[in-house]
Amino acid sequence: MGLELYLDLLSQPCRSIYIFARSNNIPFEFKHVELFKDSVLGKKPAAGSGAEQPRAGPSNSEGAGKVSLLKKVPALKDGDFTLAECTAILLYLSRKYNTPDHWYPSDIEKRAQVDEYLSWHHANIRANAPKTMWIKPVGVGCDIFEDRPRLMEWRRRVEDAVGKELFFQAHEMILSIKELSNIQIDPQLKEQLAPVLLKMLK
Amino acid sequence: MGLELYLDLLSQPCRSIYIFARSNNIPFEFKHVELFKDSVLGKKPAAGSGAEQPRAGPSNSEGAGKVSLLKKVPALKDGDFTLAECTAILLYLSRKYNTPDHWYPSDIEKRAQVDEYLSWHHANIRANAPKTMWIKPVGVGCDIFEDRPRLMEWRRRVEDAVGKELFFQAHEMILSIKELSNIQIDPQLKEQLAPVLLKMLK
Repeated sequence: MGLELYLDLLSQPCRSIYIFARSNNIPFEFKHVELFKDSVLGKKPAAGSGAEQPRAGPSNSEGAGKVSLLKKVPALKDGDFTLAECTAILLYLSRKYNTPDHWYPSDIEKRAQVDEYLSWHHANIRANAPKTMWIKPVGVGCDIFEDRPRLMEWRRRVEDAVGKELFFQAHEMILSIKELSNIQIDPQLKEQLAPVLLKMLK
Repeated sequence: MGLELYLDLLSQPCRSIYIFARSNNIPFEFKHVELFKDSVLGKKPAAGSGAEQPRAGPSNSEGAGKVSLLKKVPALKDGDFTLAECTAILLYLSRKYNTPDHWYPSDIEKRAQVDEYLSWHHANIRANAPKTMWIKPVGVGCDIFEDRPRLMEWRRRVEDAVGKELFFQAHEMILSIKELSNIQIDPQLKEQLAPVLLKMLK
């Protein structure tokens, strides 16, 4: 049994692992977990609405619960070994697959700076994720890049670094979330939320 | 110029670095930063109260601001190299001083489990630190170990692992905080806070 990654690409830590693994041609079985299923923006699909899965293939939500003691994604399973926590998974993959030095430099000071950033990001950007998560503004139809040249510039840099194709693969779900048929956002809620979210982003 | 560590032993991440460095006989210059000076429990010492520094030696609070771009402790300075974030500092020290394998095992799976714990701790135990921090209950005179056998057992395990002497060195300030003459806690506030904090700990 090879490497299995339990991911939901609506989650930023999951996307970072997906991009890292694909960029480095690490072979893995994509186990799709539906972290936000039926609960995006607090709305459940109506019974019998014929909601489709957001991606082809069965959900592995229960499997992820078994894999990760912490019962959350991302989770890794490699034979009998299981691992949670995004940073730990990225570092494990970089060591096991001996990824190019620029990802996690062997130079002790450069490596420390990567550790510093990962740690800072984890407790700062991620801790404030509910405010900055794409999914909410995108879910109610806001274009978060419009009139934000610095944000757009950052997106361009990321696309250049990982490649447009991989960038879109990783963000396909999140960018098309408002069209996903199984996420039914109450039009009234949508109307109420849009200005609040736009204000939050300013 | 050798290794400098900017620490305030009232802070848990600082104590972990202090204990790690001392346990491994890593030579460093202790730069004492007064993170909570005059602001513990929101009270400032009265003007002209003759408040003493909590520890001998000058404060290096300004120095820490220069060392760490993030302007917080712990911070490390090693020649021209500076570093913030507790986890990054611990890993840097383990690599630079080649500490025994049990601290950060070379076995890829065991190492991943250490990374997993550090990451989980950072975003969970630490994120809830205001609730669990010793300083507040201890500051108002609560014995947090009384009638808590599991907590006491944990403390015994830590003392055994790092040695009683080092444990007390690292926790000396925090355990004697209510006696520190420069931290003046309003008796009324103390009376109000004690039952709240005790309830929080239950």
